[in-house]
Amino acid sequence: MAAIKVYGSVISTATQRVFATLYEKELEFEVVAVNLGAGEHKKQPFLALNPFGQVPALEQGDLKLFESRAITQYIAHEYADKGTNLICAGKQMAILSVWVEVEAHQFDPVTSKLNWELIFKPMFGMTTDTAVVEENEAELAKILDVYEARLSVSKYLACGCFTLADLHHLPNIATLSRTQCKKLFDARPHVSAWVADITARPAWAKVVAMQTNH
Amino acid sequence: MAAIKVYGSVISTATQRVFATLYEKELEFEVVAVNLGAGEHKKQPFLALNPFGQVPALEQGDLKLFESRAITQYIAHEYADKGTNLICAGKQMAILSVWVEVEAHQFDPVTSKLNWELIFKPMFGMTTDTAVVEENEAELAKILDVYEARLSVSKYLACGCFTLADLHHLPNIATLSRTQCKKLFDARPHVSAWVADITARPAWAKVVAMQTNH
Ligand SMILES: N[C@@H](CCC(=O)N[C@@H](CS)C(=O)NCC(=O)O)C(=O)O
Ligand SMILES: N[C@@H](CCC(=O)N[C@@H](CS)C(=O)NCC(=O)O)C(=O)O
Repeated sequence: MAAIKVYGSVISTATQRVFATLYEKELEFEVVAVNLGAGEHKKQPFLALNPFGQVPALEQGDLKLFESRAITQYIAHEYADKGTNLICAGKQMAILSVWVEVEAHQFDPVTSKLNWELIFKPMFGMTTDTAVVEENEAELAKILDVYEARLSVSKYLACGCFTLADLHHLPNIATLSRTQCKKLFDARPHVSAWVADITARPAWAKVVAMQTNH
Repeated sequence: MAAIKVYGSVISTATQRVFATLYEKELEFEVVAVNLGAGEHKKQPFLALNPFGQVPALEQGDLKLFESRAITQYIAHEYADKGTNLICAGKQMAILSVWVEVEAHQFDPVTSKLNWELIFKPMFGMTTDTAVVEENEAELAKILDVYEARLSVSKYLACGCFTLADLHHLPNIATLSRTQCKKLFDARPHVSAWVADITARPAWAKVVAMQTNH
């Protein structure tokens, strides 16, 4: 099988989703750094990998993929027998899909806006819009109430085991935990136990180490 | 196998995505109307099906699912041998996932905002925000340029066959085609041939008929 190349940036949350999956699967891969500051993602040759000009992208021989959650699903299915099993069989896979979609359509939009306002805007010398922060914190609180209920009857989101549904949350949770929003996780016992559990995984520690070694 | 019940509304684009899949698969199902105007989706018993209070939801015996794209994937995999095959095998499934994610993360956010401003706000007696419309039309034009390039080398988004990746676009395309945004599809020959092709499918005609018979 041809070598796996991941094009992206160690500080990109979407790229981190792919790194976490590869480490869980104990797969070798090569990182090809895309300099977002220099706009490399909006130019060739990167646009040939992702015409939408966003990281990450994956290349493996002839196979070219983009969109982080398509890449993680490919890896989880293609290497089902390696490392951590991140998917389920049969009807349980349908429940896993529900929580993968919840991350993508409920959790991600709100937490991405909060990360943008509270982490990335200050990093780029821009001013945080406190009205946007308040509105999205209120939304996040409601979403986490649903997670609290779910995690009080199921150890992880999809089932009793850690799966892609949990993994997809890691980058935004880790980034948001460095902000005032941490209190929203801490206030909910099952959510905070889940956050502690999934952020303590050795595979995730490797993704964090990539950032500090950067 | 227990009967399939779909909870939702015939004018909800997310619910239409599920109806289209069930008709493609030639499956029998029962529609349980949820009155959004009366706020039934924000109360019990609906919240027991989807704690986020959005339609659609699916119930089949003990199985309870929500999030339209999780439901379509369950149907496409569980009934792989019935009706139209909506998924692919092996590496091609990874390409299908890429375009499923493109719909969810690129196409849907922009077209949902346009549908809200141009169709649903006027329907509810609210005023369209023309600045939001302009901004999202410009975004949609860029997205459709990528689709034009893709559809000039591939008959459908994932491969040579109609799949879930195409189907997921149907509700927002059909709704948006009743607005000034139709010109953005018409201006691109491969996109407009694809739109004509997928909206002409008998399964989609049945979803449209549900709205007129409503
Ligand atoms: N839905 C995409 C989102 C990718 C994304 O937003 N990537 C960011 C970095 S985390 C990026 O490339 N931003 C630059 C841009 O959008 O122009 C995915 O999951 O891969
Ligand atoms: N990501 C969800 C979106 C569902 C959705 O937005 N449903 C709309 C109708 S099309 C709804 O229930 N809106 C009411 C609300 O959000 O309060 C899915 O695909 O099922």
